[in-house]
Amino acid sequence: MNARIFAGARRIEAIPANDRGLAYGDGLFETMRAHRGGVPWFERHWARMADGARRLRMALPDRPLVESNLHEMLADGGDGVLKLLLTRGGGGRGYSAAAVTGPTWILTRHPLPPPPRANGLHLRWCDTRLAVQPLLAGLKHCNRLEQVLARGEWVGDDWDEGLVRDTDGNVVSATSANLFALRGDRWQTPRVDRCGVAGVCRGWVLEATGAAEATLSVNDVERADAVVLCNAVRGILPVARLGDRAWPAHPAVHELQGRLSAAHPAFNPTITEDLA
Amino acid sequence: MNARIFAGARRIEAIPANDRGLAYGDGLFETMRAHRGGVPWFERHWARMADGARRLRMALPDRPLVESNLHEMLADGGDGVLKLLLTRGGGGRGYSAAAVTGPTWILTRHPLPPPPRANGLHLRWCDTRLAVQPLLAGLKHCNRLEQVLARGEWVGDDWDEGLVRDTDGNVVSATSANLFALRGDRWQTPRVDRCGVAGVCRGWVLEATGAAEATLSVNDVERADAVVLCNAVRGILPVARLGDRAWPAHPAVHELQGRLSAAHPAFNPTITEDLA
Repeated sequence: MNARIFAGARRIEAIPANDRGLAYGDGLFETMRAHRGGVPWFERHWARMADGARRLRMALPDRPLVESNLHEMLADGGDGVLKLLLTRGGGGRGYSAAAVTGPTWILTRHPLPPPPRANGLHLRWCDTRLAVQPLLAGLKHCNRLEQVLARGEWVGDDWDEGLVRDTDGNVVSATSANLFALRGDRWQTPRVDRCGVAGVCRGWVLEATGAAEATLSVNDVERADAVVLCNAVRGILPVARLGDRAWPAHPAVHELQGRLSAAHPAFNPTITEDLA
Repeated sequence: MNARIFAGARRIEAIPANDRGLAYGDGLFETMRAHRGGVPWFERHWARMADGARRLRMALPDRPLVESNLHEMLADGGDGVLKLLLTRGGGGRGYSAAAVTGPTWILTRHPLPPPPRANGLHLRWCDTRLAVQPLLAGLKHCNRLEQVLARGEWVGDDWDEGLVRDTDGNVVSATSANLFALRGDRWQTPRVDRCGVAGVCRGWVLEATGAAEATLSVNDVERADAVVLCNAVRGILPVARLGDRAWPAHPAVHELQGRLSAAHPAFNPTITEDLA
């Protein structure tokens, strides 16, 4: 794996054994689509990380230094996935961060994931429920055991993703993507103020469609006219099945994918599949 | 910092950049009191980690290998704190752990913390609430942002610890210790089946005193005849103040400390203070 590790502004060889990201998940991350040597949504990713750092009272690295390293790692002009992981740094006594040494940050480059299932994703409901914690809701933080447990509920290729509910039974998202459900001509997506992640692609869809943030039940999702998942690596993915519920292709989904690929050619579904 | 890092049975130089402990807090830890070259509660620590690994479907390292390294690190016969951090390992695709490389584990040795305040701890109530998540409750896992936020509510030496409640308002623990409250001649401690950590010292106190696990409100704690905190590094610590509420020394606390130091000389309060 191609990795660059920094302690503040200084490049280092290895992650310190006392790093608080490792000890407590005391960090934030961004998983970004790279395309033709650039990161089309870098501005949105940086804004979300800055918001997370403010809410967790964590120092940010120097943005120009992050950007210059990111562009060096993409100097071959290729596509892929870039991950930026930020931790509060090393040290402190137990949970107290009073004596931390400043932020650790790590850039890694990864290949694109395999193309999605051709005629739409197959989803299942997860049994794992997400706890309600407004202090962390919306953030792309590194406390992800709930997602690990939910994703661990199935193996094999029968299902592409799982939908998770919160402990009150409201639908939140997939394990690693946000969800939009179409009712008539209106898109809706679960609120992320009690749990869940305020996804970067979710933010784009909200602005592009005027979708509503809503409280969605299992029935709301199963009775929707169409369902899509979205994230910043794969863009907008149609859902073909959720357990026994099946959806045929819907023109509104095709239209939404077309708008995204017009705005950001990285998310042209045809190009993505050509890469397989 | 004195650290030994392993990938399965193989000692390695550095933590891999793709370790899931760093990425997701996908791990468990034990913070153990070392005394005269041994770890008096190793059996309890190992049992808790094994239970956590089972619940999180995570591989354990080889126990004799852990123990031999631990004893080598304590070969000077000194006191201190040993931390064992276990992660699910490196790799996998996103949250899926299907392709992990096996457990990463790290042993580090640290000096003893400073001695506690002489006439009992000064506590405050934290505003940070703990989310209710039965799937993770009781475990000493590495998703600790809530504790980091709670401990970040104060700086300086006016307060030694903070008490945290869950999102329903029930008292759970301190940020890094369990709590017992005395009513009459009966000790009570909050349940840890919805959130919180099943502390190793808490387990000893439950067995030694026949204390009750109960749902405790703020009033239950403030009206208690005596309150103590406990953890596996410091043993049993009397509480002198909680905000404006003050408690004088109580013979039942002294008696409990005496029983613990008789069972495990590491926790003799006098010895601890001599080390300052």
